[in-house]
Amino acid sequence: MKGDVYYGKGIRELEGEYTDLYEVVSDLNSAVWNGKVLDYKTQKLIAIGIAASRADARATKKQIRSAIEVLGITKDEIVDVLRVVLLTSGMPAFSKSLQILNSVVEAIEEGKEDKA
Amino acid sequence: MKGDVYYGKGIRELEGEYTDLYEVVSDLNSAVWNGKVLDYKTQKLIAIGIAASRADARATKKQIRSAIEVLGITKDEIVDVLRVVLLTSGMPAFSKSLQILNSVVEAIEEGKEDKA
Amino acid sequence: MKGDVYYGKGIRELEGEYTDLYEVVSDLNSAVWNGKVLDYKTQKLIAIGIAASRADARATKKQIRSAIEVLGITKDEIVDVLRVVLLTSGMPAFSKSLQILNSVVEAIEEGKEDKA
Amino acid sequence: MKGDVYYGKGIRELEGEYTDLYEVVSDLNSAVWNGKVLDYKTQKLIAIGIAASRADARATKKQIRSAIEVLGITKDEIVDVLRVVLLTSGMPAFSKSLQILNSVVEAIEEGKEDKA
Amino acid sequence: MKGDVYYGKGIRELEGEYTDLYEVVSDLNSAVWNGKVLDYKTQKLIAIGIAASRADARATKKQIRSAIEVLGITKDEIVDVLRVVLLTSGMPAFSKSLQILNSVVEAIEEGKEDKA
Amino acid sequence: MKGDVYYGKGIRELEGEYTDLYEVVSDLNSAVWNGKVLDYKTQKLIAIGIAASRADARATKKQIRSAIEVLGITKDEIVDVLRVVLLTSGMPAFSKSLQILNSVVEAIEEGKEDKA
Repeated sequence: MKGDVYYGKGIRELEGEYTDLYEVVSDLNSAVWNGKVLDYKTQKLIAIGIAASRADARATKKQIRSAIEVLGITKDEIVDVLRVVLLTSGMPAFSKSLQILNSVVEAIEEGKEDKA
Repeated sequence: MKGDVYYGKGIRELEGEYTDLYEVVSDLNSAVWNGKVLDYKTQKLIAIGIAASRADARATKKQIRSAIEVLGITKDEIVDVLRVVLLTSGMPAFSKSLQILNSVVEAIEEGKEDKA
Repeated sequence: MKGDVYYGKGIRELEGEYTDLYEVVSDLNSAVWNGKVLDYKTQKLIAIGIAASRADARATKKQIRSAIEVLGITKDEIVDVLRVVLLTSGMPAFSKSLQILNSVVEAIEEGKEDKA
Repeated sequence: MKGDVYYGKGIRELEGEYTDLYEVVSDLNSAVWNGKVLDYKTQKLIAIGIAASRADARATKKQIRSAIEVLGITKDEIVDVLRVVLLTSGMPAFSKSLQILNSVVEAIEEGKEDKA
Repeated sequence: MKGDVYYGKGIRELEGEYTDLYEVVSDLNSAVWNGKVLDYKTQKLIAIGIAASRADARATKKQIRSAIEVLGITKDEIVDVLRVVLLTSGMPAFSKSLQILNSVVEAIEEGKEDKA
Repeated sequence: MKGDVYYGKGIRELEGEYTDLYEVVSDLNSAVWNGKVLDYKTQKLIAIGIAASRADARATKKQIRSAIEVLGITKDEIVDVLRVVLLTSGMPAFSKSLQILNSVVEAIEEGKEDKA
């Protein structure tokens, strides 16, 4: 379901100490990932595009990993997102995100082989 | 068709004077908007998200206008893009883009009334 | 009081049409401007610094105006914020914000004279 | 005292080789951290906000560490800065800075225990 | 000469009211535009590239105008700078800067005709 | 020659799987690094300035290394680029880039000693 957001360590630690902040972060996530008309997958592709356009390695990696693992988004679909990143944000952002995509896909495949 | 990109004045003027640049810009546009798996509309929503996340008024306006006029993307769909912008980029980018969206929608509706 | 945030037009229009978004934006504002230990004025100075460091004219103007009009923050205090902007973000952001500060201060003073 | 700025390695190495640059960097620091009216602590909180809003890990870590170690700024105060970052810059910048804050606080506490 | 920097209105107004800031801004300009080995023109081309890569209309316009008027830099040279902007920063920054370049060149030529 | 661009791993892997993207990236590089009037070295200095102004460690390192190794650009020349970065982008970007420059120069010198 949409509401199932996997928070990083920083956010989870808010829960005890800064309850008001934790609650507003939860509410914000609920309001965002429950669009009126776009489905979760499309919103996720948009979030990948925004993270990649900033060459933000940490956010791009997190978005790509959960896109593939949780939503079943494919490598080809993410490359199509990165096409828009190349056009709007240039080569450094594109090339960095491409490398992140490749390494995430590789890591997931290795994980599957280990289990097999 | 996807290849039909409407260039701004700056790019159109490249055609005569800087032909090599004009050609590479055209090729870039063709390669970007012809993704393997995502449709044009989804790529456009991603482009809106990237422009809005930077609070880039000029690019956001251009993307939103062509999204509505050429691709028939609705206001509700763009608000769903802006939800992701609010989460990933904060209030100033969200609030600025929301105002641009409202003014573009208004301008288009007024245009229709004038013709009616 | 802290909770008294003056929303721009874009946000106010959310209230009817996109109630869930309006509510989360309100909650976010409440959670932010009610810090545990810092007072509202210090948080406002931080918000000015962030807006100015991005050379975001619209947000800088809004923050500076409400800082002066609502919180009684002085020009000297804002120049001290802009010193940090000069160091961390360079001359274009500093010089743009300085001009915005000067024009806001001037406009407020003219407004007072008109009423006198 | 305000003038006591702890330069990173890159800047310190300027001193011998690029004396004119070293001097202007020193003068810049002096002019910035000696505001007319705001105290050093408030200016430091603003510098943390600007670094965190850019999700600049290196600068955020440096600012937070010197804030705690040199100026005695508390974790709660920095969380109040990060509230403004959440509002103005979104979740990725907020969540990254929160993790940096947690790890810096932890490292400082471990250092104290080691000495005890 | 290199030291001849034309300050905008905001900076000039510092001179009386915030003398220490005005002096450090002057010293900074002197230290920057007096490189050991690169000439002023090359440094100016770099400054144009940085401003344009951010799609910062105000700074791009100022840099381009003084490049052409004071240093005799040509349109072709600036287009070569913008090629690097296209590669590193994408189409919106490139297209916006190209339009600024065209309008500055046009305004300068009209100015010359008026005097003729 | 100008056309000799050394792609990172991410881009090279495009060649087999996403041929259309690989081709447009190649064409883009050719169109950018073959300016009408500026030489390759000047364009490279501009690219360093843009990467450094964003405090983008990965891109700054790549640009600086190929500048020194392939084009024989000197440390003094790059410091002159970083002067412009200090002015336009502030201390964090300047100081980070300076450290990258120092470590790249050191690594290259160590490499030479190893071979000697």
